[in-house]
Amino acid sequence: MRQGLFITLEGVDGVGKTTQALLLKRCLEQRGHTVLHTFEPGGTVLGSQIRQLLLNPEHKELHSMTEILLYAADRAQHVFETVLPALEGGQTVVCERFIDSSVAYQGYGLGLDIEGIKDINRWASGGLIPDLTIYLDADPAESLKKTKGDRIEQRTLEYYARVREGFLTIAQEEPKRVQVICATGSIEEVASRVLEALGGICP
Amino acid sequence: MRQGLFITLEGVDGVGKTTQALLLKRCLEQRGHTVLHTFEPGGTVLGSQIRQLLLNPEHKELHSMTEILLYAADRAQHVFETVLPALEGGQTVVCERFIDSSVAYQGYGLGLDIEGIKDINRWASGGLIPDLTIYLDADPAESLKKTKGDRIEQRTLEYYARVREGFLTIAQEEPKRVQVICATGSIEEVASRVLEALGGICP
Repeated sequence: MRQGLFITLEGVDGVGKTTQALLLKRCLEQRGHTVLHTFEPGGTVLGSQIRQLLLNPEHKELHSMTEILLYAADRAQHVFETVLPALEGGQTVVCERFIDSSVAYQGYGLGLDIEGIKDINRWASGGLIPDLTIYLDADPAESLKKTKGDRIEQRTLEYYARVREGFLTIAQEEPKRVQVICATGSIEEVASRVLEALGGICP
Repeated sequence: MRQGLFITLEGVDGVGKTTQALLLKRCLEQRGHTVLHTFEPGGTVLGSQIRQLLLNPEHKELHSMTEILLYAADRAQHVFETVLPALEGGQTVVCERFIDSSVAYQGYGLGLDIEGIKDINRWASGGLIPDLTIYLDADPAESLKKTKGDRIEQRTLEYYARVREGFLTIAQEEPKRVQVICATGSIEEVASRVLEALGGICP
């Protein structure tokens, strides 16, 4: 059924995913693509309510297993309500965060069951795999300066260092799908690196 | 770690699970048990908010995969926050609904991926298996008369007939764990059947 390209952007909070996603969208549109820009978590109405549960600082008792499953629920809704219909309609989808974020944050960052997280999320997303994943890599200490504090971002820098290692491990394991892009420098410099990475799948 | 007995009550809406759970609790207490009576979905503060998402009739777009994962998230929170600590503290836990409800309602009732639902929920609940499951069996058409209408209960009788068949199939597959109890007759008659079923694990 799938016809459109599915491109995901990954990276820690504050690294510039939204900025680069919007530049990428504009560039793809100039090449004739119809582009849907979307994001996880919270990319649907229901998902935004799930996200509120996840980010509510009153939920101190939130168990890590519950957290993994709520992110997977958000993802399932997003894939089946938004992403797959767009792809099947021939659109190119540029999505901020996908399964790799769950694996990097919950699996590597929190030290939880990496294979379990992969299995749950593959199931939740009906086996959908990105044609290309752009991982924006930078020192988390620098990226996090740009974000405001909430439940997730109050976690320690050591945690984010493990998350970064997680993303880099995923990229090593799946070099054909995942391109590691250096996210330091000006917005334009990073954007041109993203476009280079795109070359292979979208001339 | 586990010391206490874990007993679940299953059955379609309106069959009398709460009434029988409370009678069972009283009877077990008379035998010297410390008993926690609890339920799914919504047995925790966070779970009650997840349940609100599930039952909100405005969420017409709720995808079946999302529904399965939200129930699993609710279950994970309930198991790790409530059930396991009670069992590890030596309490007997009497729980209305557990994994069998997800398998019967979403798997058999909605015709979704039964093995997937079992896998997700085993993972979500850390492999916890009830010592005894009491399935209260009755004609859904009769049971449903006793319940008020909401998102779930507006589903068709055909659906509930499939759910009932699902519960009976589970009971056939796991005869040692699941006892099928006829839920027609007076409350006292059903309660005495429940106590008989208990004999094997709790003299």
